[in-house]
Amino acid sequence: MKIAQIQMKVVSDKNKNINRAVGYIEDAAKNGADLIMLPEMFSCPYETQQFPIYAEEDGGSTWKILSDSAKANHIYLIAGSIAERDDDRTYNTSYVFDRDGSQIAKHRKMHLFDIDIKNGQYFKESDTLSAGNEVTCFDTEFGRFGLMICFDIRFTELSRLMALDGAVAVFVPAAFNMTTGPAHWQLLFRARALDNQAYYIGTSSARDMSSSYHSYGSSIITSPWGDVISKADEKEQIIYSTIDLKKVEEIREQLPILKSRRRDIYDLSKSIR
Amino acid sequence: MKIAQIQMKVVSDKNKNINRAVGYIEDAAKNGADLIMLPEMFSCPYETQQFPIYAEEDGGSTWKILSDSAKANHIYLIAGSIAERDDDRTYNTSYVFDRDGSQIAKHRKMHLFDIDIKNGQYFKESDTLSAGNEVTCFDTEFGRFGLMICFDIRFTELSRLMALDGAVAVFVPAAFNMTTGPAHWQLLFRARALDNQAYYIGTSSARDMSSSYHSYGSSIITSPWGDVISKADEKEQIIYSTIDLKKVEEIREQLPILKSRRRDIYDLSKSIR
Repeated sequence: MKIAQIQMKVVSDKNKNINRAVGYIEDAAKNGADLIMLPEMFSCPYETQQFPIYAEEDGGSTWKILSDSAKANHIYLIAGSIAERDDDRTYNTSYVFDRDGSQIAKHRKMHLFDIDIKNGQYFKESDTLSAGNEVTCFDTEFGRFGLMICFDIRFTELSRLMALDGAVAVFVPAAFNMTTGPAHWQLLFRARALDNQAYYIGTSSARDMSSSYHSYGSSIITSPWGDVISKADEKEQIIYSTIDLKKVEEIREQLPILKSRRRDIYDLSKSIR
Repeated sequence: MKIAQIQMKVVSDKNKNINRAVGYIEDAAKNGADLIMLPEMFSCPYETQQFPIYAEEDGGSTWKILSDSAKANHIYLIAGSIAERDDDRTYNTSYVFDRDGSQIAKHRKMHLFDIDIKNGQYFKESDTLSAGNEVTCFDTEFGRFGLMICFDIRFTELSRLMALDGAVAVFVPAAFNMTTGPAHWQLLFRARALDNQAYYIGTSSARDMSSSYHSYGSSIITSPWGDVISKADEKEQIIYSTIDLKKVEEIREQLPILKSRRRDIYDLSKSIR
């Protein structure tokens, strides 16, 4: 499976962002990518007060452009994330389209990034966003995949539920910042991949020091053995990688972590809602 | 809290191992250590067929020597692990003694190391060992700590249960090998510490290329921010470190991972046995 990660800068003009994304998708498809991935909030500045303004309903104009682009280029599209409006609520939502442009998955960011340190940093996604309530996995011709957004990756339970649900790769549109990025980005992707013996693919926006939010960039792929397969720098670019999904089964056989879980001692399950 | 990690070589003579451990404990206590820690299976060669031969019952002669040593030196002793006999079963067991020599915790390795890697390691603890069934936390004058052994660290659920039970530091007597050590040792300690925002302290045996088992050594301490605070090389040595347990609360406040878990979506609990 050939993956193209589009690490693009995000500007304040929504149409410019979408046009650039569509152009990159065409380029990547021409270069033989099977699956193309965009970063978190690729059409909207990463500012909580902007999310409701940029938000569109399911099936809105951005959704249509993305679906059309997947179909026209005959590729799987993990469409990063955009702001979604649903009644009076706004979500940070990732759509996935198959080669025919059909939506095969939708994930609303489930863990919102809220930081409020006395005399320190303040960033509260929950000021304007609502949290999703679904563990999102989906099937493709290559296997079963998981889908989460940025801060979701910090929660071991979510990744484990995806592995137990059969995910062999997990896609994470993201935009870590310049504090947590250098400290934790690579560590988290290596650890989730190793612990669940699956591929983890994180696609970030590119760093733009002239914008209000400084993204860490560094789009990454980690292997089921916990290795870094590819890692970008901070600049705008498309990163191409080929991953061998057969390795998942191989490593799960050699080092049987999932099978060796002591389910008689601890139990991880979806809560009854 | 000043910690001394005794990264010692393990020879086939049980008494020699124990005498060397006791000598190191005296040295470390003289140097002001509050808590002294030994490696996994420090009195017995790391060979599955040896475990039942070296095994002793609870309160046996090695237990008594360790308890006396904790009392005589007025230190907390995380006594690595030894082979424990209980009826016809053998366990890989870690005892913890307080400054009075009283046993305040006992953990039987809960996940047995059964591995078969292509062109790598074959090792099956379950050939001779039985697995423990308890999540082990204990209280000290410094705070509440968790206790696990080596392969136990690979299972995110166990660490999470300890954090939810109030552990601010987790002690891990261990002996990773020369395949999994270079690949995963540091990554696992950094990840568990970061994900649970607690200190992780791993004490390994020293590498002895003349013995049948080649330990990775590299005894380590990682911080609640996921940093490596100290890491040894492979040689026999005592490693001294001072850790600030107040940092746990500080970091949990700044980056509220444990509080932000979506307990309405997933539930991790001890199984009913």
